[in-house]
Amino acid sequence: MARPYNFSAGPAAMPAEVLQQAASEMLDWHGSGMSVMEMSHRGQEFGAILKSTEADLRELLAVPENFRILFMQGGGLGENAIVPLNLSRGETVDFVVTGSWSKKSLKEARRYCTARVAASNEADHHTHLPAPATWQLSRDARYVHLCSNETINGVEVHELPDLKALGADAPLVIDFSSHVASRTVDWSRVGLAFGGAQKNLGPAGLTLVVVREDLLGHALQICPSAFDYKTVADNHSMYNTPPTYAIYMAGLTFQWLKRQTEGALRGVAAMEARNVAKADLLYGCIDESAFYSNQVAKDCRSRMNVPFFLRDESRNEAFLAGAKAAGLLQLKGHKSVGGMRASIYNAMPIEGVQALVAYMREFEKTQA
Amino acid sequence: MARPYNFSAGPAAMPAEVLQQAASEMLDWHGSGMSVMEMSHRGQEFGAILKSTEADLRELLAVPENFRILFMQGGGLGENAIVPLNLSRGETVDFVVTGSWSKKSLKEARRYCTARVAASNEADHHTHLPAPATWQLSRDARYVHLCSNETINGVEVHELPDLKALGADAPLVIDFSSHVASRTVDWSRVGLAFGGAQKNLGPAGLTLVVVREDLLGHALQICPSAFDYKTVADNHSMYNTPPTYAIYMAGLTFQWLKRQTEGALRGVAAMEARNVAKADLLYGCIDESAFYSNQVAKDCRSRMNVPFFLRDESRNEAFLAGAKAAGLLQLKGHKSVGGMRASIYNAMPIEGVQALVAYMREFEKTQA
Repeated sequence: MARPYNFSAGPAAMPAEVLQQAASEMLDWHGSGMSVMEMSHRGQEFGAILKSTEADLRELLAVPENFRILFMQGGGLGENAIVPLNLSRGETVDFVVTGSWSKKSLKEARRYCTARVAASNEADHHTHLPAPATWQLSRDARYVHLCSNETINGVEVHELPDLKALGADAPLVIDFSSHVASRTVDWSRVGLAFGGAQKNLGPAGLTLVVVREDLLGHALQICPSAFDYKTVADNHSMYNTPPTYAIYMAGLTFQWLKRQTEGALRGVAAMEARNVAKADLLYGCIDESAFYSNQVAKDCRSRMNVPFFLRDESRNEAFLAGAKAAGLLQLKGHKSVGGMRASIYNAMPIEGVQALVAYMREFEKTQA
Repeated sequence: MARPYNFSAGPAAMPAEVLQQAASEMLDWHGSGMSVMEMSHRGQEFGAILKSTEADLRELLAVPENFRILFMQGGGLGENAIVPLNLSRGETVDFVVTGSWSKKSLKEARRYCTARVAASNEADHHTHLPAPATWQLSRDARYVHLCSNETINGVEVHELPDLKALGADAPLVIDFSSHVASRTVDWSRVGLAFGGAQKNLGPAGLTLVVVREDLLGHALQICPSAFDYKTVADNHSMYNTPPTYAIYMAGLTFQWLKRQTEGALRGVAAMEARNVAKADLLYGCIDESAFYSNQVAKDCRSRMNVPFFLRDESRNEAFLAGAKAAGLLQLKGHKSVGGMRASIYNAMPIEGVQALVAYMREFEKTQA
C-alpha cells in the first residue's frame, strides 16, 4: 500500500517501519502479555525500554559522558519557562532572536530573569542569521539562548557559534526541536539542548533535554519539582511517571535511525547526507522557478522546514487541493508567515521530495 | 489469544478492544493516509478527534457547562505545582492529608503559598478517612485540596464533602487520578479536578484538568504560560502542541466506556456497578481469610487500588512468582507500603478479579 507523503511541520511523518512495528507489538510486547502502554514505569520491561532508548540516543547523537539525557513533558513552550527556571538564577540571560520560536522563548524567560536581546533578525522578517561576531553578548549572562532551527521561518544555524571564541563565558542553550537527529551536534559548543519529540523523534508529548552536568542543581526555588532538571536527572527521568509510550516510539525511531546507511555513512551522519540532498532538490526547484520563491538567505536556509510562496497567491488553495489529490499532505504554511511550507524531516524519503518537485513543476506549467 | 490480567497501579491495563482498534488504525486513520501520531495538531483530522474526545468525556462524566475540560501534560506531580500556581494567589490553602499523594501535593504547594494541614490520617499510617466535620478549615483558604483516591494507600473518598455545609467558602480541588471515570462525580461540590490519564483514561503523558470557569485567570505571574489554565482554556488545549496520540487513545477509551452497559446502566454508571462488584469480591476474599489482610477502614477502602499483605511475608516472592505463572501480573505493592497491591481499574474485567481470588485461595491452601 502506498502511503501519501506527509509534509506536516509537527507532529510529523514517522517511518512506516516504525509504525508497523508498533502496531504489531500493540497488544503484546515481546511476549510480556502487555502493551507498552500498560506497563508500570517501574517494572523491568519498561526499565529495559527506557535504558536502551537512552543508550541508542546517546550513541546516535554522540552525547558525551558529562551530559545527562532527560525525558520530560511540556514541549518546547514548556521548556521556554523550564530552562530559565533551571539555569537563569534570576539573573541575566542573552537571547539571539532568529524567528518566531526564539521570540516566544525570550518573552517567556522575562518572567524569571533579565532576558536581553543580543542580536535579532526581526527587521528583515527573520530571513537571515545575524553573524555571531555582531552579537552583543553580556559579560554576566547565565546562558545564551539560540534556536538552532526556526520551524516557522525556515532559518537554520549550520555552524553552532563558539561562544568562548566570542569572549563569552556563558553556556549555549539551543532549541533543536525541529532538527534534532537530522545532523550531528558539536557538543563542545553546547551547554544544554532541548526539543519536543514531534518532529524527528516520535510522538508529541515527549520533550528531550540534553544537559551538561555542571548546569544541574541551580533551579530557582519556584521551579516545580517535576521540572527541576536535577530532580529529573537524579531519578533517571522517573520522578514523574514518564510518557512511556512516547518514549517507546522514540526508541523504535532510534533503532530505525541506527539501521540507516548512506554509502559508508550510518545513523545520523547518513540522515544528514540525505537531508542535504533533499533540501538541495527542493530549494533548487524553487530557485530555478519564477513562480515559486523562498525569502531566506542561502547560508541559513533550513534543511528541515522549507517555507515558499506562489507568485500568484490567489492560487494557494488550488495548489493545496492539487497536492492533496496527488498524495502530498499538510503543505499549508504557518498562519504567521503564509504561503506554503514543506517540512522534510528524517522520515521523509527523497522520493517524497521528488514527488513534490514534480508536482510543483506541473502546477507551475498550468499557470502560464 | 488469552491475555494475562494486569494489576498495575499505572500505567495500567487498557481494554483489549481499544488496543486492537489503535493497532488497526496505526498506519492509516480513517482513510487519511496518516497515523494519528503524524497529524498536525492544527489540522482538521486531529481537530475532529480532540472535539469528539472532549465531548465524550463531558457526556461520560456529566461535566456541567460552566466547567472547562483541559488536556495538559506533566502528570499528577506536575499538577501539584500547577494547581497552586493557578489558584492559590500566593495566599492560604487547606490540605486534607489522606496518604502519600496528598502529602506530596502539600509539600509542593508550599513553594507557592501558605499550605495548611486541615486534617491528617498520618498517625494511623493512612488507613482511615478523617471525618469532614473534624477538618480544621481556614476562613480565608483559596481552595481545599483532597486526594479523592489514594493510589498507594488504597483510601477512597466515597462521598465528596460539602464544603459549604462545613461553613467553608473555598472551592474543593480533587486529585482524582486513580478513580476518574470509575464512578460518577458530584460536580456541585467540586471546583477543580485533575488527574493523570494512566490509570483509567489512557496512556501516561496526558493530564486531565476539569475546572470551573470562575477559577480561571488568577495565575501567579511566575506560572509558565503552557501551564496557565486560562491560556490553555482560551486555546482549547492547543496553546502547546498537545500529546496528540495520548488524547486519541483516551478518546478510544471514552468510546469504549460509552458502549459499556450493566443492566439498565450505561457508561460510567455501568462501570461503577462493576467496580463495586469487583471490589466486594476481592475485599471479601481478604476479609474471610486469616492469611491475607487489608489495613484500611471499611468505609474508605478504595475500589480501584487494593493493598494487601500476606501473614507470612517471607512468602511474598513465591506469591508473586506463582501469580505471574498464572497470568496475574504486576501485583507487587508500592515500596513505601510493601506487600501486594491489586489495582482493578475499569479495564479489569470481573473475570480478572475472579482469577486473582481463585489464585489467592489456592496459594493460601499451600501455606497451611
